Amino acid sequence: MATKLFRREDHAPLAPPSSMTVFSDLVELRTQERVQFIDLTELVAERVRRSGVGHGLVCVQSKHTTAAVVVNEDEPLLIEVMKRMVERLAPPDAEYGHNELHRRREPAPDERGNGDAHCKALLLGSSQTLAIVDGALQLGRWQRVFLVELDGPRPRTACVIVMGIPR
Amino acid sequence: MATKLFRREDHAPLAPPSSMTVFSDLVELRTQERVQFIDLTELVAERVRRSGVGHGLVCVQSKHTTAAVVVNEDEPLLIEVMKRMVERLAPPDAEYGHNELHRRREPAPDERGNGDAHCKALLLGSSQTLAIVDGALQLGRWQRVFLVELDGPRPRTACVIVMGIPR
Amino acid sequence: MATKLFRREDHAPLAPPSSMTVFSDLVELRTQERVQFIDLTELVAERVRRSGVGHGLVCVQSKHTTAAVVVNEDEPLLIEVMKRMVERLAPPDAEYGHNELHRRREPAPDERGNGDAHCKALLLGSSQTLAIVDGALQLGRWQRVFLVELDGPRPRTACVIVMGIPR
Repeated sequence: MATKLFRREDHAPLAPPSSMTVFSDLVELRTQERVQFIDLTELVAERVRRSGVGHGLVCVQSKHTTAAVVVNEDEPLLIEVMKRMVERLAPPDAEYGHNELHRRREPAPDERGNGDAHCKALLLGSSQTLAIVDGALQLGRWQRVFLVELDGPRPRTACVIVMGIPR
Repeated sequence: MATKLFRREDHAPLAPPSSMTVFSDLVELRTQERVQFIDLTELVAERVRRSGVGHGLVCVQSKHTTAAVVVNEDEPLLIEVMKRMVERLAPPDAEYGHNELHRRREPAPDERGNGDAHCKALLLGSSQTLAIVDGALQLGRWQRVFLVELDGPRPRTACVIVMGIPR
Repeated sequence: MATKLFRREDHAPLAPPSSMTVFSDLVELRTQERVQFIDLTELVAERVRRSGVGHGLVCVQSKHTTAAVVVNEDEPLLIEVMKRMVERLAPPDAEYGHNELHRRREPAPDERGNGDAHCKALLLGSSQTLAIVDGALQLGRWQRVFLVELDGPRPRTACVIVMGIPR
């Protein structure tokens, strides 16, 4: 493998040791499709601004086992590609013992056959943690934060928690 | 796509800027199966209570490259479904160059042919970061935190670290 | 399932509630291959030391939608195995609508047909959050932190942010 060139932009500790702020918020939304990518980026960035945190972390967490939180690009054709991939890796029509509700102890009243949705969520992950520098959510040019519905339509909740030193 | 209704439950910064607490713990356990989901939720929630943190984050991290940490539902039939999916995506009987120990520089003394387990761990992820609000681990109704053994049985260690402002 | 033996090594809160430090750094590098695992462990450990943080968290975040951050083992044959798995789960020669640039609104000037790379990144994840205890990055014996190039060669940036109480 060829040599790699690393250029480093170093920052000294961003501030003298300081007191810290924690800010949390619940985002509630109603999804419309069985599998749907919902762009939460502006919502998250707004919470970061409102928190008053200058340098720290924000964690965006799904409160569900069949909805994930991911970072990728918000481009309509790409979203179709990503949907098709998760459907391919965990097809809705495969056999899932979890879907045989009569074999289960206490299925939820609104339970459906959704073993595939749990599998998709397991692959995509339930939360994302991102950096905050100089009061701004650190995202690359094409990066967006999504809640990914995998068993919709349903009401869903995401938790946004911002922690760091004040601006 | 139809319009989306967002209802927002806003919280002001949860407390005035404050000093912070960090609490860490190692959880050691011995797994029993080759692929096994071990529910750590009560262990993690107990560390959150013991830390004295009121608002902040907890990170649960596997110390291994063939054991993952995930969030999903603890339902026996579903766990079988999730095991079958990871076996399907990285089958133990596929060819893995990593398993040809004679080709490797320094295989560990207890090394087995476990290329599939590394692949599974790569897909599931090595840690989970979750929110703490009002002294409680933020999990949805069905969410549980698991260490996922992918190359057991083995002794395993998870690191639980809690960081935030005191209650 | 057999009983599990848990041994717990408990740590009291690691220090009295304290002020906190945040340290951030951008790591810029130029990748050489289409799919490449680049070991950032020493770079990250060095930032942890330089931050002066004794107990806390470090988050390593890709700033890209076609480059991921993962934790696994740095063993050459294993890396070939992991590359083959991600190629198998999202083959570069499958049909991806995202690649039909004429159907898209504003393709980037350097855009290539890279739907597979987005899919791979979606599965691997964009960041990793790891514990810091006693001034040291907490990694198991075989754990290493990688930036994973999925659409190279390209210039890439990772953000390293360290947060916690000072040593």
